[in-house]
Amino acid sequence: MRIDGKLLEQRLDALYKIGAEPGGGAYRPLYGTAWAEAGDCVERWMKNLGLETHRDAVGNLWGRLDGTENGKVIVTGSHIDTVRHGGRLDGALGIVAGLTAVEALIKERGRPKRPLEVVAICEEEGSRFPTNFWGSRAIVGAIGKDEAQTIVDPAGVTIAQAMRERGLDPAKIDSAARDDIATFVELHIEQGAVLETSNVPLAVVTAIVGTAHLEVSVTGRPDHAGTTPMELRHDALVGAAAMIQAVESIARSLGKPAVATVGKIRAEPDQINVVPGHVVFTVDLRHSDLGARRALEARIRSLCSTIASERSLKLDIRIPQERPPVPMHAAVRALLLRAAKECGVNATEMVSGAGHDAQILAARCQVGMLFVPSIDGRSHCPDEATDRRHLELGTKVLARALEILAYEVV
Amino acid sequence: MRIDGKLLEQRLDALYKIGAEPGGGAYRPLYGTAWAEAGDCVERWMKNLGLETHRDAVGNLWGRLDGTENGKVIVTGSHIDTVRHGGRLDGALGIVAGLTAVEALIKERGRPKRPLEVVAICEEEGSRFPTNFWGSRAIVGAIGKDEAQTIVDPAGVTIAQAMRERGLDPAKIDSAARDDIATFVELHIEQGAVLETSNVPLAVVTAIVGTAHLEVSVTGRPDHAGTTPMELRHDALVGAAAMIQAVESIARSLGKPAVATVGKIRAEPDQINVVPGHVVFTVDLRHSDLGARRALEARIRSLCSTIASERSLKLDIRIPQERPPVPMHAAVRALLLRAAKECGVNATEMVSGAGHDAQILAARCQVGMLFVPSIDGRSHCPDEATDRRHLELGTKVLARALEILAYEVV
Repeated sequence: MRIDGKLLEQRLDALYKIGAEPGGGAYRPLYGTAWAEAGDCVERWMKNLGLETHRDAVGNLWGRLDGTENGKVIVTGSHIDTVRHGGRLDGALGIVAGLTAVEALIKERGRPKRPLEVVAICEEEGSRFPTNFWGSRAIVGAIGKDEAQTIVDPAGVTIAQAMRERGLDPAKIDSAARDDIATFVELHIEQGAVLETSNVPLAVVTAIVGTAHLEVSVTGRPDHAGTTPMELRHDALVGAAAMIQAVESIARSLGKPAVATVGKIRAEPDQINVVPGHVVFTVDLRHSDLGARRALEARIRSLCSTIASERSLKLDIRIPQERPPVPMHAAVRALLLRAAKECGVNATEMVSGAGHDAQILAARCQVGMLFVPSIDGRSHCPDEATDRRHLELGTKVLARALEILAYEVV
Repeated sequence: MRIDGKLLEQRLDALYKIGAEPGGGAYRPLYGTAWAEAGDCVERWMKNLGLETHRDAVGNLWGRLDGTENGKVIVTGSHIDTVRHGGRLDGALGIVAGLTAVEALIKERGRPKRPLEVVAICEEEGSRFPTNFWGSRAIVGAIGKDEAQTIVDPAGVTIAQAMRERGLDPAKIDSAARDDIATFVELHIEQGAVLETSNVPLAVVTAIVGTAHLEVSVTGRPDHAGTTPMELRHDALVGAAAMIQAVESIARSLGKPAVATVGKIRAEPDQINVVPGHVVFTVDLRHSDLGARRALEARIRSLCSTIASERSLKLDIRIPQERPPVPMHAAVRALLLRAAKECGVNATEMVSGAGHDAQILAARCQVGMLFVPSIDGRSHCPDEATDRRHLELGTKVLARALEILAYEVV
C-alpha cells in the first residue's frame, strides 16, 4: 500500500494552523472556535473520501465507510483538542493518519467487509475543563450525571453551556455511547525519547501505565537561619530533599517502565533567612503493572517515613488521584506486530507512559496502539516533531492493520 | 545592684501592647503609628528617670544622663521597631533593660563620671522598607545620599515621605551621625536555642556572623513525567535536592558556628506531570570568620558544580548579598565577662548568628553584646519568651557593665 507522505504532512500543516498561538504552537480547547474550525476541516476531508459523517451528542466526529457484511465496527482516529502551545502531531496525527490510511485502502481495496470508521474525538487533553477523556468517556457511557452542569472552565462556563454554544444538547450525552465497536486502533507519537534513543522506527503499545499522584507533606519547625545551629534544626526542606532523592533512586532501581517524578514543590515560610518549617511536594508514579506500581508506592512511603523519623519530621501522604494500568488487547497487539512485519518494519513493544483514549475505550472494545518516534522526545510544545519517513511508516502499518481487520476478516 | 524583675516585665508588657496584632504578636514598623506611640512611651519613662531626651534626624530616641567629667559617651539600648507578628523581647528588651539598669545605677550611684545614654534605635528589622539598620546607619553616617527618596514601602511611600509624616526632615539625616560615643553595649535575646540547650544563663557575644546570600539556578530539561524513562531525564529538581543535601552536610561537617540554610525554592514548570526543567533556590551562609565563610561557600559551589555536571545540568550561582562578620571589641568582651563574674553568673562566649545594630555601630565605637536564653529558641513570633530570672540576670550584668564603664572609669 502506498502512503502519500506529502499529503499527510499537508493535512497536518492545515490542522496545525487552526488555533495557532502568538507564542508558538496551536491551542484548540474543547468547544472553542478553533476546535469547531478543525472539526469542520476534518469533516470536509472525510466527505471528500466518501465517508458518511456524523457528530455524536458530545461532538465526537465520525466518518463511516459501510462494510459489505456489516457487523461490529473497526475504528481508528484520535483526539482533535490540544494543550496550550500544543504541537503539530499529538492527536492530529491519529486523525490524519487514519484518514490517509482509509483513503489508501479505498483506492486499493474498495469497500471493506466490516464497517470502517475514522473518529475525531472531541477531547482528551483536559484542554479547557478540569476533567479529561470527555470524548472517549461519552463513547463508553462513563460520563457522570452532573458533570456537564457542574464542571466549569477558568472563565466559569459549564461544559453544558459550552456544548449548547456548539449546538450540542447536554441532555443527550448518553446517546453518544456505543456498543457496536469491535476494535479501536490508534497511531500516536511516543512523546518520549525511547524509540529515538534505541533507533527503532515503530512500537506496538503493550499497556498504558497506571498513574498515582501522591501529595507529600513534611512538617518540621521554622527557625532563624542565623541563630539555629545545624544540629538543633528540624528542616522540612532538607528532609524533603532526601525524599526527592529517594523517589528517584527507587524508581531507577525498580527498572523500566517504572517512573516517579516530583513535579511540584512549595516550602514555607519561603524566606531566605528562615529554616523551612513545612514543605509540600507531589509525586507522579507510573507503571504498566498495578502490583509493581503499588510496590513502587510502598517503597517510596517506607523510605520517606524512615527519612522523616530520622529527622524528627512529621510526614503525611495523600493520594489525590489513582488510575489503574490498562493492558492493550493481546489479539490486537499480535495483529499490529504482524502488520509491521508484513510492511518490513522492525517494531518493538513498549509501555505507554502517557494516558490515551484507548485506556478508556478498552472498557467496551478491543484496543491497540502504534507509536512513532518523537524527535528529541519533545511533546506538548511547538518543538513536537517526527521524521516524515516515520510518519509514513506508521501510517502504512496502520493501514495494513485496518486492512487485516476490515477486509481480511474471516 | 538590685534589678526589679517585676517592673522590667511590666515595661515589656506595656511595649508589647503597642502595635498588638489580631493574629498575635506586635508590629511596629518604622515611622508607623505604633512605632510613634512606643517612642512616646519610652520617652516618658526616660523623663521619669530624669534623663534628658532628644530625637535625632531619623527618629532615634536618646535619653541622656550627663557625667561629672563628661568625655565620650557610654550608650546602651536597642531598636524599637519589630517584624510582623513580632515577639515581646526582640529590641524591646535592650531598651527596657537599659532603662532599668540606668534607673538602678542612678538610685545606687547617682550621677556617673561619664555621660550615660539609653537609645531607642528607630529601625533595625527591615520592618517596613526593603532596607535595614536605618537607625544605626544614621548614627555612623552611613546612609546613602538617595536612599530616603528612592526606597519605598509596599504601599509606595518613600522613607522621606514617611519621615515627614513624623515631623522629621530627610534633608537633615547627616546630622544624626555621632562621633562622641565611646562604647555601645546591648542586651538581647539569643533568638536560638544554644544557651537553653547547654543550660547556660548568659552569653557574651564574640562576633556577629557575616552572611552571604546565594541564588542557585539549576537548569535541566522539562519532560513528560510519563513518557520519559528515568535514565533519559535531566531533572533539575532531583539535582537541586542533591545540592540541598550537600549544603546541609557541608555546613555540619565544617562545624560550629557555620550554618547554611536553603530557605526558598521554586520549580518550573511546577506541574505534577512534568519533570522540572528549572529550579532556583537560595542559600543563606553564615560564619563568624570571613575565611571560614568563604571556605564554606567554596565547598558548596564545588559540590553543586560536581552534582550539576554528573547530571548534565546547567548551574548558575549569583550572590545578591554579602556582609562580612564583625568581631565585638576585645576590651568590651573582657569587661562583660568580668561584669558577669562579679554578678556571680557563669557566662559563656558565643557568636551571634543574627544581625544586630552593634555590627554597624562597630564602625564608630567599641561595641559589645550580652545574650540571654530564648525559650525553645523561638524568636520573631508571639512565642518569643525568656525566663524572668534570665531577664533579671542579664539586666543585672548589663547594669554592672555600665557601672564599670561610666562610674569606675579611671
